[in-house]
Amino acid sequence: MKKFTSVQDVADPKALVDEAIAVKNSEKTSAIGKNKTIGLLFFNSSLRTRMSTQKAAQNLGMEVMILNVNNDGWALEFEEGAVMNGKTVEHIKDAAAVMGLYCDILAIRCFPSLTNKEEDSADKIINQFIQYAKVPVVSLESATRHPLQSLADMITIQEHKTKEKPKVVLTWAPHIKPIPHVVANSFAEWALACEYDLTITHPEGYELSEEFTKGATIEYDQEKALQDADFVYVKNWSSYTDYGKVLPVEEDWMLTNEKLKVSNSAKIMHCLPVRRNVELSDEVLDSENSLVLKQAENRVYAAQTVLKKILETNF
Amino acid sequence: MKKFTSVQDVADPKALVDEAIAVKNSEKTSAIGKNKTIGLLFFNSSLRTRMSTQKAAQNLGMEVMILNVNNDGWALEFEEGAVMNGKTVEHIKDAAAVMGLYCDILAIRCFPSLTNKEEDSADKIINQFIQYAKVPVVSLESATRHPLQSLADMITIQEHKTKEKPKVVLTWAPHIKPIPHVVANSFAEWALACEYDLTITHPEGYELSEEFTKGATIEYDQEKALQDADFVYVKNWSSYTDYGKVLPVEEDWMLTNEKLKVSNSAKIMHCLPVRRNVELSDEVLDSENSLVLKQAENRVYAAQTVLKKILETNF
Amino acid sequence: MKKFTSVQDVADPKALVDEAIAVKNSEKTSAIGKNKTIGLLFFNSSLRTRMSTQKAAQNLGMEVMILNVNNDGWALEFEEGAVMNGKTVEHIKDAAAVMGLYCDILAIRCFPSLTNKEEDSADKIINQFIQYAKVPVVSLESATRHPLQSLADMITIQEHKTKEKPKVVLTWAPHIKPIPHVVANSFAEWALACEYDLTITHPEGYELSEEFTKGATIEYDQEKALQDADFVYVKNWSSYTDYGKVLPVEEDWMLTNEKLKVSNSAKIMHCLPVRRNVELSDEVLDSENSLVLKQAENRVYAAQTVLKKILETNF
Repeated sequence: MKKFTSVQDVADPKALVDEAIAVKNSEKTSAIGKNKTIGLLFFNSSLRTRMSTQKAAQNLGMEVMILNVNNDGWALEFEEGAVMNGKTVEHIKDAAAVMGLYCDILAIRCFPSLTNKEEDSADKIINQFIQYAKVPVVSLESATRHPLQSLADMITIQEHKTKEKPKVVLTWAPHIKPIPHVVANSFAEWALACEYDLTITHPEGYELSEEFTKGATIEYDQEKALQDADFVYVKNWSSYTDYGKVLPVEEDWMLTNEKLKVSNSAKIMHCLPVRRNVELSDEVLDSENSLVLKQAENRVYAAQTVLKKILETNF
Repeated sequence: MKKFTSVQDVADPKALVDEAIAVKNSEKTSAIGKNKTIGLLFFNSSLRTRMSTQKAAQNLGMEVMILNVNNDGWALEFEEGAVMNGKTVEHIKDAAAVMGLYCDILAIRCFPSLTNKEEDSADKIINQFIQYAKVPVVSLESATRHPLQSLADMITIQEHKTKEKPKVVLTWAPHIKPIPHVVANSFAEWALACEYDLTITHPEGYELSEEFTKGATIEYDQEKALQDADFVYVKNWSSYTDYGKVLPVEEDWMLTNEKLKVSNSAKIMHCLPVRRNVELSDEVLDSENSLVLKQAENRVYAAQTVLKKILETNF
Repeated sequence: MKKFTSVQDVADPKALVDEAIAVKNSEKTSAIGKNKTIGLLFFNSSLRTRMSTQKAAQNLGMEVMILNVNNDGWALEFEEGAVMNGKTVEHIKDAAAVMGLYCDILAIRCFPSLTNKEEDSADKIINQFIQYAKVPVVSLESATRHPLQSLADMITIQEHKTKEKPKVVLTWAPHIKPIPHVVANSFAEWALACEYDLTITHPEGYELSEEFTKGATIEYDQEKALQDADFVYVKNWSSYTDYGKVLPVEEDWMLTNEKLKVSNSAKIMHCLPVRRNVELSDEVLDSENSLVLKQAENRVYAAQTVLKKILETNF
């Protein structure tokens, strides 16, 4: 594996999920990463991703260098050929090349702007790191996807499913501000790659890009979508067609126990952080069917398995 | 030891002091913490606590993950049942539970607000971490106490005392802004637990909560208090009764060599950071009787001993 | 070596360059720093210095503690005898002494103000650390010099020179805001110590302090300076005589391929970060003669060699 930015970077997604479960259930630490350094670069806030990736790297014996780019480093320029007489202090082509000299692997968090659809879709920051850094690059959530989260989600489903092809429902949930599409995009493409029966439900106007959802059932009626669901993944996202906007929604889309009655005692998933009693109710989150802490725990094994594969195949 | 938040968490405080001195004087490093991770969570600034705890953990072979919660992570919600449609992004019950999955021990710095007496007294943040994280929790200074500082202070007194039961004086000192009571609270309860002859002196209106001072002599006349003192601990705190306020004080309470003449060549203590020539004079701080750097040095052995006890008894 | 703040701290600069090349070309990691801790203190932003020094320390088996002083710690007081009733919370004499207790080596980045020539020239911050910390101190760029950068630059010249005494030109370049003199100062004193044929070229009014340039040829005509140059080091700095000011410059000083035609196919150097198409053109930076990434890579070996010398001679 040369990079890990989407499910397309993985030859066999199902096998990777199985390998992660094997990592989790066997000896948790190894020395495969000894004398190797990973750089964790944060353009945005992070709690789970930061801690779980650091833990994963340390489990493999790696050294970890963390850079909060905006606070610790320099304002970066992303335009080719720019005359840098403004606020940006360093071009990404120089910064990425240098960091690639100091680190054996780079892992990067870079959210979308939600204001420029084209730029976000091109995933400019992470792709320029891939282009200029010349070391393997891992996405810690980019402008289009959050693949370590999705791999952890797939591990969690694999561990808790009771049938070969469970019904997995991704339901839109309310929020108070514009939220990226990345978790939903990524979850959809991984669930489809793992050949689950995926239904996506959301109000009209909240259609995700077909690039990620092709093969899923789209259902605008939340109640119908939840019917017989085995897993319900709750997530807000802003409009993709009316890019980055929060559109008015009349119905109440917050997930409650009442709504879940039509499901097959569905397991509940969310990537966290979650706005309690806005996206879903306390009663759902704190119920026995909630898998949210299992997902968070599996973030370590997702990261550890990806780093292990990269170490095995690149060094 | 399941947690370390106050002297009440310690079965035998005197024995812990002796153990810390033994740690300091024997082989300083060990491998007891190998493959164990400590998370250091800072809701507030820290220099000594941050560096000494990190050093202590590394001396024990632990991996250290540091999170500056306000900058690196998400704004946390602390109210049970909150409808999170405001500024907070994640509930502490979720954040703490997740961090407990990634760390074997959590250590937390969370200052009081000094505006809400009841909330501060309940020590809400650290207690919610204890409730939800399900791993041992160490206070790096909470809303009510600073026990690692106090343990370092007791180590320092033990090392420098020349009689079994020295006279220890905690004297209030001037400051320019409202300061928490935590160091004074904690010092008082540890000095009393170590059975020292403790006198607390401060202007009227600056009485500490009796919860911490029961058994100490309260003396409003600084000169009388300093009479024959073997150790003088200098510290400012804001009013507790008129909660968090800086009350007008007419007399000059800054500690000087002149004032110390009535003492028994008292050793001088302060937890640092100290406002020179406001709380006490340069001449006192830079004198041979000053123990402030010894206290700072002992922060490492205080932290190391507490972590060692937790590692020994929980894993 | 007790400290590393300028070329004067090094007994034999040429031998140190050779030793660094030997470190680079032999086994890159060692255990000489095992159970030793380095504190990296940043009063200012840092990318290359932060990462390369951390990597160097880890290569030597050291533990690394990083403190972003302004965000993580307390506002420091630098005036002797100050009555600290203002914004500063801790005196450097206390902070430095304490950090010296926790760390075996301290490395410090502290930029000049560019507003107070005398204070900057006295290099007050780093010198107070040296005075009070009582452990070896390494400059990560101070108010007057950037010696780890210069050592990396000398390693790079040594690796690429094709004659014993190449012509090395340090050329001023345009910038949009006032920039410190430290890189130019330091490069000049190291190039002279390594006995290179050094020419410095800049517009009138941009003369550097003679303390650093004595022995170099000063040439106000950039074209004449570039004639037959083997290495061209590009760098902006503000005025030293009209301290910290950006003076109007009529000619175009940006380095281009056109201007380099008179050189001896000069190798191009810059410490980064670089403002592309302001200081020098994309075509120069991206050409085969550009050594900027080699310089950045050598930052690791510069730091590693200095830390190794300090570890060998102090512990």
